[in-house]
Amino acid sequence: MKRIVLFGAGKSAYTLVSYLVKQAEENAWVFTIADLNASAWAKLYKTPSVKLVDFNIENEALKNTLIEQSDLVISMLPARFHPQIAQSCLKFSKNLITPSYVSPEMKAMDEEARSKGLLFLNELGLDPGIDHMSAMKIINRVKAEDGQIEGFESFTGGLIAPESDNNPWHYKLTWNPRNVILAGQGGAVKFLHNGKYKYIPYNKLFDRTEMIHIDGYGDFEGYANRDSLKYIDLYGLQGVKTMYRGTFRRPHFCKAWHILVQIGATDDSYVMEDSENMSYRDFINTFLKYRESDSVEIKLAYYLGIDVDGDEMRLLAWAGLFEKKMIGLKMATPAQILQKLFEEKWALEEGDKDMIVMRHLLNYTLNGTKKRIESSMVVIGDDENNTAMAKTVGLPIGIAAKHILQGNIKAKGVCLPMEANIYEPILKELEDYGIHFVEKES
Amino acid sequence: MKRIVLFGAGKSAYTLVSYLVKQAEENAWVFTIADLNASAWAKLYKTPSVKLVDFNIENEALKNTLIEQSDLVISMLPARFHPQIAQSCLKFSKNLITPSYVSPEMKAMDEEARSKGLLFLNELGLDPGIDHMSAMKIINRVKAEDGQIEGFESFTGGLIAPESDNNPWHYKLTWNPRNVILAGQGGAVKFLHNGKYKYIPYNKLFDRTEMIHIDGYGDFEGYANRDSLKYIDLYGLQGVKTMYRGTFRRPHFCKAWHILVQIGATDDSYVMEDSENMSYRDFINTFLKYRESDSVEIKLAYYLGIDVDGDEMRLLAWAGLFEKKMIGLKMATPAQILQKLFEEKWALEEGDKDMIVMRHLLNYTLNGTKKRIESSMVVIGDDENNTAMAKTVGLPIGIAAKHILQGNIKAKGVCLPMEANIYEPILKELEDYGIHFVEKES
Repeated sequence: MKRIVLFGAGKSAYTLVSYLVKQAEENAWVFTIADLNASAWAKLYKTPSVKLVDFNIENEALKNTLIEQSDLVISMLPARFHPQIAQSCLKFSKNLITPSYVSPEMKAMDEEARSKGLLFLNELGLDPGIDHMSAMKIINRVKAEDGQIEGFESFTGGLIAPESDNNPWHYKLTWNPRNVILAGQGGAVKFLHNGKYKYIPYNKLFDRTEMIHIDGYGDFEGYANRDSLKYIDLYGLQGVKTMYRGTFRRPHFCKAWHILVQIGATDDSYVMEDSENMSYRDFINTFLKYRESDSVEIKLAYYLGIDVDGDEMRLLAWAGLFEKKMIGLKMATPAQILQKLFEEKWALEEGDKDMIVMRHLLNYTLNGTKKRIESSMVVIGDDENNTAMAKTVGLPIGIAAKHILQGNIKAKGVCLPMEANIYEPILKELEDYGIHFVEKES
Repeated sequence: MKRIVLFGAGKSAYTLVSYLVKQAEENAWVFTIADLNASAWAKLYKTPSVKLVDFNIENEALKNTLIEQSDLVISMLPARFHPQIAQSCLKFSKNLITPSYVSPEMKAMDEEARSKGLLFLNELGLDPGIDHMSAMKIINRVKAEDGQIEGFESFTGGLIAPESDNNPWHYKLTWNPRNVILAGQGGAVKFLHNGKYKYIPYNKLFDRTEMIHIDGYGDFEGYANRDSLKYIDLYGLQGVKTMYRGTFRRPHFCKAWHILVQIGATDDSYVMEDSENMSYRDFINTFLKYRESDSVEIKLAYYLGIDVDGDEMRLLAWAGLFEKKMIGLKMATPAQILQKLFEEKWALEEGDKDMIVMRHLLNYTLNGTKKRIESSMVVIGDDENNTAMAKTVGLPIGIAAKHILQGNIKAKGVCLPMEANIYEPILKELEDYGIHFVEKES
């Protein structure tokens, strides 16, 4: 009888939990959900295969007991807690899955995990996760045909489904709001374009977008992710001339967000004076020159050289940034003020569905002919539980968990899902859940 | 017989050393110069009053001996070393002078210094230093007349004298080049303008300049220093409506520098790929979009919305940023590349003189009438040793040292030169050296 323990099971783990409950029942496994609020799952699942344990990461003894009693550990906790879970997995010789980027602490456990015959499989959600797996599948196929890969571009976006899209930003908050506000901060963007290294500072990031059309879903705008260069080695694309990874928004979003970046409204490094007595209009005005005779709108448009009746101003006005409504936050940073505003304005409404869009573009030469593959995935949420985000993050983990317990995955050490042995069965089963890529070759 | 020890005596300490040698001879004091290369002073000073000691900050024993044997310690070492010197001053109960901003470690020694009856006098150079003293003198005078101060603005610039000004940036490197390249980085600018708090992010800093005219010296452009708000309490200006501190450049400098900031060329946070095989033209091109059919100049002008034949492009071209000359630096950050270039282009030539410009503007109400004081100081270097920088940084320290040894300064603890008892004799004696303020009242 196999045992799985899942640490961290908030609302976004809904699809993963459903999947693992079903697997546990079918295979007579025991599936333990360890969460701060594990009992919330009781009204959904009352089967002997499922155990609910209220769990706090500070409870070292309970953590160790749960890990010791399991065959496979899944951590959906915030990424900073993974190393604690992983250390315990080393101690009790247990396999581990996380959806998060491999941290230096995690990487440092590779040798010990390998020597104990353990698999610590990371970056197994959507992005990172499905992006790696679907990219490697195409890259390995082209290489197997003896194609010479010259360019790789990839974009992912967590957006709102067309049927729920009813605001001029064409955006709602379907994941961590703080990450949306701070997106692009923390270092210059680096990529490779036709053999030239390119760098974009944060203050120009949302001005350097690319427009991409996806059949049936319309136009998207992509801005660059922080460091695309490290994916050259990771994806085995040494010698490639173009390497670019980016994030999707809908048209107009980036241009309007660029205004907020330029004036400094997304800064999270200092607390604003007297923020508790400030309106959103005052907030914008703190970033503009003092000129008694001009309105905030005129000053902003003139400062940034934009049309006072243009798209950017229309989106900012819709968000309420020119309103005299009080912010009502004490000791707030600019980013915290924007977060409060957009948590209201971009809130999901009842029945809203989210949408995940991923697009890879591969340019290569085969037998002297230039070729091109466009591969796109669009996933729409089923309902407020099985959101597109919950499905695309949770299902790869659930499927991998099944295959690890069934002994189908042989990799050892701290791994990413880069090998066909790992990604093939996952991508194949994802198709059963409507998560598939549409390819166009030319 | 009084004893002074000076730690750190590079070329910029020339005026301070001359002053203290003279004082030592006149007063029969002993003046010890402790420096990595102290013997370099031997050809200038061979008097029984002056002792030269080759000294490395890592020599703890020598540091303690030198401090124990002195009555007053001056540290002109890099600011990060002051706390080590100060700890030793506490141990042996000695007074200390530094030209640097009070660090948290220094501040933490206030109570112990006070309890031992010691004075640790900091921020006693030019900026900080003469700026504080000259500002406090005007502020205290206006307060004594019962004037109500509404606005305070202050600018300082370390520039090149008009007779040595022969490049279109109207700038040469008269102090630490790295600080010039990184100026304005490390946090948003904060100030108060007519009762409104204002914030400027780094990417807009050099676009938000003020033009100021100084009779006899022409026009200057000022950009804001990092945090002007903390000077409200420091200068006793609670209730003031405008508080702004800035840095001077000559016209055109800021607009051209703004281009480099916007494209990301001043970034010091990452190493550029392949910098050893890059020309300055390639360097600029890394920040621009890939477009094979357009020149770097056209792409840059279009990207930033500037005239391809305008002033900004003229200054960048003069600097050689569009030339195919190789940079010749391995593993360099963008900022390091700019530093290498401008160290050549803005190098002082033989006979060049530097210039320090300081300007305060005070707006106040006296008996119901709005009044205004403009107070300006311009200091030009005498020669390559007694530069304006060496004079304005060194003389306040030398004069304070004399008064401390003569027992004229009563303050105790970790202090700034904010009291009339300290700044009055210093400002008065500075006039003998041609360092004086010209006031215009209206």
